[in-house]
Amino acid sequence: MSQSIISLHPLSAYTFTVKEQQPEEDASVAARLQRLQNNYEDFGMRRTTEAVLVVHEHGHPHVLMIQIANAFFKLPGDYLRPGEAETSGLAARLETILAPSPAEPNSYGPRGPAGEAGDWEIGDCLAEWWRPSFETFMYPYVPPHITKPKECKKLFLVQVPPTKTLAVPKNMKLLAVPLFELYDNSQRYGPQLAAIPHLLSRYNFVYL
Amino acid sequence: MSQSIISLHPLSAYTFTVKEQQPEEDASVAARLQRLQNNYEDFGMRRTTEAVLVVHEHGHPHVLMIQIANAFFKLPGDYLRPGEAETSGLAARLETILAPSPAEPNSYGPRGPAGEAGDWEIGDCLAEWWRPSFETFMYPYVPPHITKPKECKKLFLVQVPPTKTLAVPKNMKLLAVPLFELYDNSQRYGPQLAAIPHLLSRYNFVYL
Repeated sequence: MSQSIISLHPLSAYTFTVKEQQPEEDASVAARLQRLQNNYEDFGMRRTTEAVLVVHEHGHPHVLMIQIANAFFKLPGDYLRPGEAETSGLAARLETILAPSPAEPNSYGPRGPAGEAGDWEIGDCLAEWWRPSFETFMYPYVPPHITKPKECKKLFLVQVPPTKTLAVPKNMKLLAVPLFELYDNSQRYGPQLAAIPHLLSRYNFVYL
Repeated sequence: MSQSIISLHPLSAYTFTVKEQQPEEDASVAARLQRLQNNYEDFGMRRTTEAVLVVHEHGHPHVLMIQIANAFFKLPGDYLRPGEAETSGLAARLETILAPSPAEPNSYGPRGPAGEAGDWEIGDCLAEWWRPSFETFMYPYVPPHITKPKECKKLFLVQVPPTKTLAVPKNMKLLAVPLFELYDNSQRYGPQLAAIPHLLSRYNFVYL
């Protein structure tokens, strides 16, 4: 019944640097869907975790997002290896993508050995999205008559440790997008990112 | 970190009956906004609570909604009296609207004495919506530069007690709307109801 209180640090508390590029695993959407299908045949349903990193500017919540090729937006995260735990797996992905440690492009995502988990605090599960087939569309529920979904993606609220340095691969941009920009804007951000204001509305934010 | 597990009963577990009508408090949207403004001057920000009652049919979650005049849809609930607690206040509104006890139109909402709270189990807060001015639009956050919102509406997940009889005032309809019908359908249901699939996606439902 009691509502969760979350302390947000100002965007200015963080230092941003650039590190070596981390190329996308797949060169096209078609290649990504083909890999999904291949992995499904080998390992079953793909499990993906992504982080909703929230900071504030002028007392309004902003979500940290990655922009690739000046085009599409995504949350930091990736799919997990078979059997890999959600929490430590997500923390390791965040460390690979955003920590200033020496870039290890080959350890990005499930391709290489597991990375360090860093000091990321993985919080509440905010949402689950389901992919019913080897196509691009996902839903925030398992659609009726779908017994074998191909992917389940979970979004977690992640507290950014105060005064952390975030190192962004140079082929990506890290943007702090205000909730009022995301809201009702699935045309620009897609349905998953545009729903984040809804998912966060139950929290009482304290602006440090 | 752990995800909540919610048991859903089938729609067929409930009995629906009809009871005396409960007229709307205000005859028009303009009258409702005028009352909001008058109440704001007397008591400050309006606090509203509404219930997301979830059942299942064929293993897919459905949300119970009220339809008025064959036109617009709303969740059961209403605004609270100044100082009234959210949980017991919402339970009393649900009892007034949906319990089969003798209809007491004058005790509906904040107009009359508090009703009985019944056996409603008020669960997690799912969302908060804010009304920045004496207008119809609301947002799932406090918009920037708004220091005195006029209304805060909270949605709570409410477990329907199994095998309960729900008595619906005869000027209303109670509908069980599937998540796949609500999703991405703010044109028909408005932004608040269309967002419910997002708000529920983090739960693991067990279909009894």
